[in-house]
Parts: sequence; structure tokens; C-alpha cells
Amino acid sequence: MREVFHQSLEEVQDRLVEIADLVTAAIDKATTAFATSDVSLAEEVIDADSVIDEKAVALDELAIEILARQQPVARDLRIVVMSLRVSASLERMGDIAEHIAQLTRMRYPERAIPKGLKSTFTKMGELDVEVARRLSDLLRTQDLAIADTIRNADDDIDELHVSVFEKVLSDSWQGEASATVDATLASRYLERFGDHAVSVAKKVVYLATGDWTPDTDTLDVLAAD
Amino acid sequence: MREVFHQSLEEVQDRLVEIADLVTAAIDKATTAFATSDVSLAEEVIDADSVIDEKAVALDELAIEILARQQPVARDLRIVVMSLRVSASLERMGDIAEHIAQLTRMRYPERAIPKGLKSTFTKMGELDVEVARRLSDLLRTQDLAIADTIRNADDDIDELHVSVFEKVLSDSWQGEASATVDATLASRYLERFGDHAVSVAKKVVYLATGDWTPDTDTLDVLAAD
Repeated sequence: MREVFHQSLEEVQDRLVEIADLVTAAIDKATTAFATSDVSLAEEVIDADSVIDEKAVALDELAIEILARQQPVARDLRIVVMSLRVSASLERMGDIAEHIAQLTRMRYPERAIPKGLKSTFTKMGELDVEVARRLSDLLRTQDLAIADTIRNADDDIDELHVSVFEKVLSDSWQGEASATVDATLASRYLERFGDHAVSVAKKVVYLATGDWTPDTDTLDVLAAD
Repeated sequence: MREVFHQSLEEVQDRLVEIADLVTAAIDKATTAFATSDVSLAEEVIDADSVIDEKAVALDELAIEILARQQPVARDLRIVVMSLRVSASLERMGDIAEHIAQLTRMRYPERAIPKGLKSTFTKMGELDVEVARRLSDLLRTQDLAIADTIRNADDDIDELHVSVFEKVLSDSWQGEASATVDATLASRYLERFGDHAVSVAKKVVYLATGDWTPDTDTLDVLAAD
């Protein structure tokens, strides 16, 4: 029974890694499309999101099946419940990539990145891709040191997020209302993506060590939903 | 064992209703504070959010305990897993109420509702309170007809959300960048609140009937994260 259970857990882990890899590809393409106004790349991301959604649903079904058939307890039970939460976060990260792609498509052939914010959004996009890639590595290797690098990259994303609002609310901001809306939405999406990655990383660390850091909510109103 | 299990399920249901009632109070106060620039009411909402968070965590622990001790299968198992998801949605709805309160506090003593959008945001706020109240009724009574009324109210919220962006992006919009940022964030928060309520209602209906309507994503880029 233990043998079967551990095979099931490996299957869960493999599937989480697979979804994380799809999310990494999605955010990479979405932020590239956003920076270069590449509408066909944006559409690729939008079309591919349903694959992530389906894989997340299938993983949830597998988790429920494991609960029913193998009735795990203690730490094993927590691993299975946690996998339900991780798949929900990954699915949400895929949605965010899709929303960035939709923003790109909505503004096309105009550029979706407002004037004066190109380098900030390019950097935020690169950091989002980095956290996605590291999250995939963390899920694959269970090397907990990776969790710190995700948290650090997320801190950098948060700083850039704050700088977007400082820029938009400064006297020098010349953007029209549509540019202000785009900047507000894009910055929030990119910032939330990092938050979800940190939240998954924390769950992985918690399962391995029993160590739980409560969620901090430093960015308050400009951040989450 | 069945007897014990059904007592446990009742306990889960009672706690979900309790959290939904707290969320209703939070969104009621938050939208009132937002409309009237009442900073002390806003602070009350911000302070009370940790109670919702704690009750959601406690409910998750109860669900995990039920899984471990009573090892439910089939529909019983799905009910317990679903309660984990519902508590996550309710917790998120509480966060949104908190974000609206934070927006109010950030702008105080200025009004957080941008000029020209007062009636729209007042109506959206009332609809958010309505969906929260109905969601609580649905969880309490399991009267599935309530789910339709939640979906209808959410459709109204979505229309108002679209109208905010139409207004902000129209030639007649005279708001400064800060007003545009506030309108973008507030409208998104209020709209997401309705989405979460619909998502919980769908889960309740699914458990009762086996009927699943897939998520629609009509508002795309202006909506979710």
C-alpha cells in the first residue's frame, strides 16, 4: 500500500512540474508579446491556457482518487491536500499570463506598454519568467534553497510594482487614461504572478520542514485581490 | 461512523456560514466607507480581516482532520474537498473588502470614488453586499434557487464594471491619473468579489446536482487575475 501510495505521489509531483513548465512557457511568451506587440504570440498564449486548466482539473481528480482509494493520513494527507492548493495557484498563474496576452491583443496594433515604462515592464516580465522557472525547479528537485531565490525575485517585482504607481501618479506622467489603465492592470498582473509563486514555494517548504511563514501583505491596496 | 461524519459535515457547514456572514459584514462596511470616506469604518474592516483569515485556516484544519479520521469516500469526500475550496474563496472575498477599505484610507480625507462615478460605484457596492448575503443564505439553506439570483446580480456587476472602463476611456473623462488608477482598482475589486460568489455558488449546486457549468471568462482582460 505504501508502495502504491508513493507511486501516486510521484505521479502528482510529475504532473505539478508539467503544469509549472506550461506556466513558464505561457508567461515567457505573454511578456514577450506584451513587450513587442506580437499579437500572434499573444493569441498562442490565449489558446494554450485551456490546456493548463484541463491539466489542473485532471490533477485535482487524481488527488481526490488518491484520497478515496489510499486514505492517507498525517503528512501524506497534507501532501495530497497541498497539491490541490498548488494546482489552483498554478492555474491562476496561467490565467495571469493569459490576461497579459489579452491586454496585448486589445491594444494591438498600438503598443500595450505605456510610454516611459518600457524598461520597468521588461524587467518585471523577466522576473516573472524567472520565478516561474525556479518554481518548476523547486517542484522538480525539492531543493528548498530555491524558495529563497523566488522570494528575493518577488521582492524585486514588488519594488518595480511600486515604482510603476509612483511614475503614474507623478507630475511628470503624461499618459492618457488608457495608458494609466494599462499600466495599473499590467503591473498588478505581473505583481500577482510573483505572489502566487511565493505562495506555492512556501507550501513546498512547509511540507518539507513544518515551517510556516505567515503571508505578509506589504503592498496592500496596490497589490492583491 | 456515518452519524459522526454527518455531525462533522454540519460543523463544516456552520463554519462556512459563519465566515460568509463575516464577509457580508466586511463588504457592507467597506463599500459604505468607500462611498462616504469614512476612515474609521474602513479601519474597522482592515482590523477585522484577520478574524476571517483565522476562521478559514481553522476550517481547513477541521476538513483535514475529517479526512484523516473519517476517511470519507465518493460524494462525502467531494463535499469535504469542496469546503476547502469554498473557504479559500470566502477568505479571498474578505481580502477584497479589505482592499476597498485600504483604498478608502489611502485617499482620505479626499474621496476615493472618482468624480462622475459615484452612482456607479454605489450600485456596484450594493450588489456586492447583495451577493454576499445571498451566498450566506445559500450555504445556510442549500436552496439552489438562490444560486441563480447570485449569478444575475453578478451579471449586473459585470455590466457596471464595463461601464466604468467606458467612462474612464471616453473623451469626456477629466479625471487625473490618480482617479483613473482608483477607478481601475476599485472596479476590479468589486467585480472580482461577484466572481468569487458565483464560483462558490456553482460548487454548491454541483455538489447537490452533479451539474457543472464551466467558468466563462467574458470580461477577460478587465476582469480577473
